[in-house]
Amino acid sequence: MDAQILKQLAQIVGAKHLLTSPEELACYSFDGTGQSFMPEAVALPESASQIASLLQLANTRRFPVIPRGAGSGMTGGALPVRGGLVIAFSRMNRILEIDRENMIAVVEPGVITGELQSALQKKGLMYPPDPASLKFCSLGGNAAECAGGPSAVKYGVTRDYIIGLEVVLADGRIMQTGVRTEKGVVGYDLTHLFIGSEGTLGIFTKLILRLLPLPEAKATFLLSFSSIADATTLVGEIMSAGLVPCTLEYMDKTAIAVVAGRLSSPPAKETKALLLIEFDGTAQQLTDTTARFTTFVRSKNSCTLQQATNAGEKKELWLARRSISPATLSLKPHKISEDVVVPRSKIPKLVAFTEKLADRLKLIILTFGHAGDGNIHVNIMVDKTDTDEYQRGMQAKKQLFEYVISLDGTISGEHGIGTTKAEFISMELSPTTLAVMQGIKTLFDPNDILNPGKIFPSSQHP
Amino acid sequence: MDAQILKQLAQIVGAKHLLTSPEELACYSFDGTGQSFMPEAVALPESASQIASLLQLANTRRFPVIPRGAGSGMTGGALPVRGGLVIAFSRMNRILEIDRENMIAVVEPGVITGELQSALQKKGLMYPPDPASLKFCSLGGNAAECAGGPSAVKYGVTRDYIIGLEVVLADGRIMQTGVRTEKGVVGYDLTHLFIGSEGTLGIFTKLILRLLPLPEAKATFLLSFSSIADATTLVGEIMSAGLVPCTLEYMDKTAIAVVAGRLSSPPAKETKALLLIEFDGTAQQLTDTTARFTTFVRSKNSCTLQQATNAGEKKELWLARRSISPATLSLKPHKISEDVVVPRSKIPKLVAFTEKLADRLKLIILTFGHAGDGNIHVNIMVDKTDTDEYQRGMQAKKQLFEYVISLDGTISGEHGIGTTKAEFISMELSPTTLAVMQGIKTLFDPNDILNPGKIFPSSQHP
Repeated sequence: MDAQILKQLAQIVGAKHLLTSPEELACYSFDGTGQSFMPEAVALPESASQIASLLQLANTRRFPVIPRGAGSGMTGGALPVRGGLVIAFSRMNRILEIDRENMIAVVEPGVITGELQSALQKKGLMYPPDPASLKFCSLGGNAAECAGGPSAVKYGVTRDYIIGLEVVLADGRIMQTGVRTEKGVVGYDLTHLFIGSEGTLGIFTKLILRLLPLPEAKATFLLSFSSIADATTLVGEIMSAGLVPCTLEYMDKTAIAVVAGRLSSPPAKETKALLLIEFDGTAQQLTDTTARFTTFVRSKNSCTLQQATNAGEKKELWLARRSISPATLSLKPHKISEDVVVPRSKIPKLVAFTEKLADRLKLIILTFGHAGDGNIHVNIMVDKTDTDEYQRGMQAKKQLFEYVISLDGTISGEHGIGTTKAEFISMELSPTTLAVMQGIKTLFDPNDILNPGKIFPSSQHP
Repeated sequence: MDAQILKQLAQIVGAKHLLTSPEELACYSFDGTGQSFMPEAVALPESASQIASLLQLANTRRFPVIPRGAGSGMTGGALPVRGGLVIAFSRMNRILEIDRENMIAVVEPGVITGELQSALQKKGLMYPPDPASLKFCSLGGNAAECAGGPSAVKYGVTRDYIIGLEVVLADGRIMQTGVRTEKGVVGYDLTHLFIGSEGTLGIFTKLILRLLPLPEAKATFLLSFSSIADATTLVGEIMSAGLVPCTLEYMDKTAIAVVAGRLSSPPAKETKALLLIEFDGTAQQLTDTTARFTTFVRSKNSCTLQQATNAGEKKELWLARRSISPATLSLKPHKISEDVVVPRSKIPKLVAFTEKLADRLKLIILTFGHAGDGNIHVNIMVDKTDTDEYQRGMQAKKQLFEYVISLDGTISGEHGIGTTKAEFISMELSPTTLAVMQGIKTLFDPNDILNPGKIFPSSQHP
């Protein structure tokens, strides 16, 4: 990017909204992976038309453009791995509309997920997707990665709540997709094609969200197990019994240990696994559900069951759950963080496999996360400066993926591919499927300016 | 299609499974639109690999291929408007797998929707999408059109329950999309790109479906109104109150009249509109919901409320509801059948508009359908042999679409575009959006062999 390009960028967004000093650029060089790549410039546009101008320039002068939400992604989606221009959405963070009657919200991509949720709660509405990072991640980033969260077990993921988009294409054309109604089948489903495309097909400038009525109340339970197998088996049994929790989170003993300090009454020493389970509904529905659930769990006789009796206890449990991922870094300075999914009935096998893997490769491996939908976070803890340990970690990752695929699973449930899984994608996708995806990429972005170096294995990149 | 092609087709599927006599072809010439176009041949393949061979031949010899489920589509999706080969799925109608534990089913596209639902019910499971034609429509057709139904108001449409596909591409390559897990974000969302693509991007040969636990029971209510505006207003009020029905169907007085004969106690003469409302859940949850719902409805004092007290009454109400569409043909021999959607709060405006439209253009126009999600079926009744009436009907259709779009609505909620709305699609989609869709079509099907003449306006067809 030469001086002329920088001048033109400044003309588009205003000099004050173009960052070029090393100190400023450094702030946009990292993400949740702990990796860091310096951008050549960062633009803070305020409108779709400014982004259109930025992309026209990028497409003509052929420099990479990396859209960046809040930089909390776990797979490198926001990293400028080939330099270029980062577009950050901190100035496009307005909730444009909350339509209570039609249960629709229209937002700019920079809105923080948790801030939308707070605004909706006051109106008795809910936007379900709730990634652990909800206090700082952005809705645009959630859409780009198709983020999930604990509530996905009942409510689904980001793709289930975005019904329309405004998108700037690689050549600067601005396009609308989808609808602002509950249903719509006019032409191809471009909305879903863009969701989860990790910034490689277009840049979102507006999102139309479908909302739900906010459930009146929640009942929160903590189940403690002295056997991991008992815990993972019960997950499938609960779901098969037709009980429909809105959260079914699993934590193994290492995950418990890293957050135990945050709990006012830490779990008993013999605890090998916890399940954090919630149901939502009206107060009366919850009375019924609680009775059915506790009867069911007690009949299995495999755990100690506690119900959170007040808001403070619930908050504490959730704080502990959401803190696991950052807290793991107390074990080792780095981690290889995976979000594999298997059919629910195969969770016991998966967890048993990771235990053996940790033993065999002499690694600390934690498992926790959204067991209700089979989406287990596997954190392989390493010190990257210890080359041998890091290599064993990468070996564990590969063996984990192989095993997950042998169980009919997938290598990513909600974090995306980015750079960290790009070299593994052909373990899951056939050459035909990859070729079709590559064809779509080329159709939308013939000059490969949009978030280059992501999703596809390096052999398939230009 | 010359004799050599026919011979090769017979070699692929077996002579007995290739239909070429006019009598046989006639059976595959029509669909739910009442229109008819003769195919040149009909193949009844039994496997993806046979379909791959059919498409390889079609792609080389350049003849149209029209996938056909059960021929119940409302927009011409299964019509061979340019001749060619119809591929029918009557021999690919096996339920391959019902995985109770993981709540997943794998089916061939020819399975009848209602038959899958019956099979699932016996196992305590549910596949929610329930188009009115569920007793005869097929899951492949449902996927191609992204069919909806009454339960969409709570559970969503076909796209919300298909998590993976096997697809044969135009050149005969066989591809897998998606996952067989609850979550998955590996690469672009090709599954959703194919759903609703109306047979123009590829041919489905296997569908992986996500299932839900079957709710224990339902509570069914019939609300009778002496004012249409009262009925349509109450729809929005019910949904805004946070009550979550699994059905909220509306019928205007003409719709009621055509099915009144099927009810053992026909509605009172002053009835101008009905709402058919259901809730599902456990017996105890329904007691709570029923109490809240009846209190809420009575507080509005705008209707008579009856609860169906036994299975016979429920069945009768549903039979009446599902019979509306075919029964309308007792009014006029043909109809222009639309499935527009508006934001729920705008239903009163939409219904009032259709009444004025009927008056102004001297037409019978019925409104009924899925009011809970704003998806109103507008049936414009005509006698096509009466040229003047038919033209007035087409005028009404155009004015309806204009009005729906002015209300932020969409011209199709669940029937698709096919041929009947192709000329209207640019009322809703911008030239950029259409150009992007056309680009995708060309990428997947460069020789335009897959269901040609559908979705895109004729000006955009080769």
